[in-house]
Amino acid sequence: MAASTELRELTVELGERSYPILIGTDLLKRTGDLFLKRGFPVKAPVLLVTDSAVEHLYASTVEESLRQAGYNVTRAVVSSGEKSKSLGVFDDLITAALEAGLDRKSTVIALGGGVVGDLAGFVAAAYMRGIRFVQIPTTILAHDSSVGGKVAVNHRLAKNIIGAFHQPEFVLYDLDTLKSLPMREVRAGYAEVIKHGLIWNEEFVNWCDERAEQLLALDSDSLGHALYEGCKVKSIVVSRDERENDLRAILNLGHTIGHALEAVAGYNELLHGEAISIGMVGSARLAEKFGYDPGIAEETERLFRKFGLPVRIPAHYATDSIMEAMMHDKKFAEGKMVFVVPKAIGEVEIRGDVPVEWVRGIVEGLKEESGK
Amino acid sequence: MAASTELRELTVELGERSYPILIGTDLLKRTGDLFLKRGFPVKAPVLLVTDSAVEHLYASTVEESLRQAGYNVTRAVVSSGEKSKSLGVFDDLITAALEAGLDRKSTVIALGGGVVGDLAGFVAAAYMRGIRFVQIPTTILAHDSSVGGKVAVNHRLAKNIIGAFHQPEFVLYDLDTLKSLPMREVRAGYAEVIKHGLIWNEEFVNWCDERAEQLLALDSDSLGHALYEGCKVKSIVVSRDERENDLRAILNLGHTIGHALEAVAGYNELLHGEAISIGMVGSARLAEKFGYDPGIAEETERLFRKFGLPVRIPAHYATDSIMEAMMHDKKFAEGKMVFVVPKAIGEVEIRGDVPVEWVRGIVEGLKEESGK
Ligand SMILES: NC(=O)c1ccc[n+]([C@@H]2O[C@H](COP(=O)([O-])OP(=O)(O)OC[C@H]3O[C@@H](n4cnc5c(N)ncnc54)[C@H](O)[C@@H]3O)[C@@H](O)[C@H]2O)c1
Ligand SMILES: NC(=O)c1ccc[n+]([C@@H]2O[C@H](COP(=O)([O-])OP(=O)(O)OC[C@H]3O[C@@H](n4cnc5c(N)ncnc54)[C@H](O)[C@@H]3O)[C@@H](O)[C@H]2O)c1
Ligand SMILES: [Zn+2]
Ligand SMILES: [Zn+2]
Repeated sequence: MAASTELRELTVELGERSYPILIGTDLLKRTGDLFLKRGFPVKAPVLLVTDSAVEHLYASTVEESLRQAGYNVTRAVVSSGEKSKSLGVFDDLITAALEAGLDRKSTVIALGGGVVGDLAGFVAAAYMRGIRFVQIPTTILAHDSSVGGKVAVNHRLAKNIIGAFHQPEFVLYDLDTLKSLPMREVRAGYAEVIKHGLIWNEEFVNWCDERAEQLLALDSDSLGHALYEGCKVKSIVVSRDERENDLRAILNLGHTIGHALEAVAGYNELLHGEAISIGMVGSARLAEKFGYDPGIAEETERLFRKFGLPVRIPAHYATDSIMEAMMHDKKFAEGKMVFVVPKAIGEVEIRGDVPVEWVRGIVEGLKEESGK
Repeated sequence: MAASTELRELTVELGERSYPILIGTDLLKRTGDLFLKRGFPVKAPVLLVTDSAVEHLYASTVEESLRQAGYNVTRAVVSSGEKSKSLGVFDDLITAALEAGLDRKSTVIALGGGVVGDLAGFVAAAYMRGIRFVQIPTTILAHDSSVGGKVAVNHRLAKNIIGAFHQPEFVLYDLDTLKSLPMREVRAGYAEVIKHGLIWNEEFVNWCDERAEQLLALDSDSLGHALYEGCKVKSIVVSRDERENDLRAILNLGHTIGHALEAVAGYNELLHGEAISIGMVGSARLAEKFGYDPGIAEETERLFRKFGLPVRIPAHYATDSIMEAMMHDKKFAEGKMVFVVPKAIGEVEIRGDVPVEWVRGIVEGLKEESGK
């Protein structure tokens, strides 16, 4: 077993666009060295994008490291929260990039959770039609969002509808930053970690189950391993299907119901990880309908409960609103209902033949009043 | 010599993303057939983006053709003019796309000049991280903008600063649509046609010189040949360097000074083609400074005059403002001045060592008072 400061490294294999993910402790202060080592031109200004919660905790460490290495860095701070993933804030960041004098050789850094990553990533993708981008994730959930190059902002009618595929140059994951995360964000982040196990790696699911206590306590070694394994599944899938023509869709396990719940909740009641936790239980129940082992649903539910995640739909969410929100979700190709369904723990399939009534039945069955 | 209705076809070679450019007469009504032939799914809604000047002339022909082929098409109209290339109008078009129910298999069509092409292209690039895009150019200038996949909107501080590389599925160039173009737009369009000759093909420059009268009269056969040759140069260059790492930069001949003039003019006094006409004369004078034949500058100037294009900077444009605007232009890498310079008619080189004083001298020398 690794020491708690072991540096874990893996590569997202994408030919010319391959990049490393570094996971370890005390890494923020190595940002400048990494910039130099990877040949980022010192003369090209850097824009550090972060949010109002993360800024005071970690921005100056990253900036200092860059300045010591000779880089000129400008800080741009957005409000903490999903609302910042808007075209208006995107516009403000483009202004900031122009005012900071960013050129074609410049870099945009995202220092924060998935919100900052998606937003700053779309700035890097669109500014001068694409400049360098670096991810420094500071949430557990962002082990998912920082890998794979999907960047986007929201539109008032739909989430993540305006975006691009724009891979980072590297992902720098400093485990120390996760210590300041609110406990609710920690739990929510593990929903995506466990998702990666559920779609690909039964052994890792069992490991999470055994290590739940250490994971929730943010023990560095357990955390490092969990993020490494989660990122690994994501990397493998993205390497094989960068643009979501087929395989990559399996990463959406639990997201069809999950996104609908987020939409109905107005994006402030439920965290993304909480919504997909409920969604994954729903998908597992769908598996039962297709004749797979009913034990999958029970097992999934037990595991999420162990991590303190919700597994029921709050009673006041109207089934009709949830169903309607699903119809607007972009995972419906040409009117048919598409779902990622677990065939077993660690294995999923994509079904394009899911009857709407089944889904409605499952949504009803997940309502708080109706089950424990 | 080809008959006036000859269909000219060429391919932009980009591996998997290769696509045809079709140039001929009476083509709009073939849009639906082309969609079917190229396998665009009939169930996926189509968004037709056009502007307020083009709408009444050609939109219904395109729509009718698509409807007869079984497609569901929604029209979105933006105001005519460069002002529509904004993030605000982009947002409106994303709303229109969502309301029209566009999905991942849908297509966005640009029917219009370079403004509509760049704007609708960025919508297609960003909507759901990229959907199909078709260019139906209706200006001469758009032979340039519709080929090569550069799409963008402007920011109040800089032109084309927010964008993507997003290649169309095909370009459909109906010569009949050009008959309704205002004469000033016709002349301005030829500035980019001649630019393609100046950077790559001396013979074609001579041909343009000989055919100036027929070209300005929009004789279909001459026009078809000119657009074919212009598109060909653009295609070759783009095929070799899609993302402007090196070679593609030669397409910017005349654009460094040209963009600065547009910026100083506030984007309404000078048309893009007019600005780069002046800019190309400036670049040719720079060639002289580097010791190349002074005849290049005279020849360039004579040719643009023949097409009724401006070759002098209006007297009231302050030299300081022009120089400052150039400093903001993204064609300056790390503070050095970069220019595309003609070595001869039909051949250019990229120089990264242009002294600012030379450029200032040339700008001064091009002022209306000071020239003949
Ligand atoms: N691009 C992708 O592939 C992908 C995948 C999954 C999720 N996402 C997106 O990610 C977003 C959610 O990401 P998230 O859960 O990280 O949300 P987030 O970025 O909003 O972070 C959650 C909260 O924690 C705060 N925070 C972040 N780091 C902190 C730290 N170290 N200490 C203290 N507080 C900290 C933030 O300010 C915020 O309030 C959603 O917008 C979702 O759409 C994208
Ligand atoms: N993407 C690229 O590679 C590229 C290359 C060159 C230029 N551009 C962009 O192209 C734009 C300029 O293009 P443009 O000159 O075509 O401008 P435009 O689209 O504004 O069209 C010029 C004018 O002609 C009108 N018009 C268009 N077609 C007509 C027709 N058939 N009949 C009558 N009127 C018609 C328009 O409404 C407009 O008023 C600029 O924004 C420039 O940045 C892009
Ligand atoms: Zn997710
Ligand atoms: Zn141009």
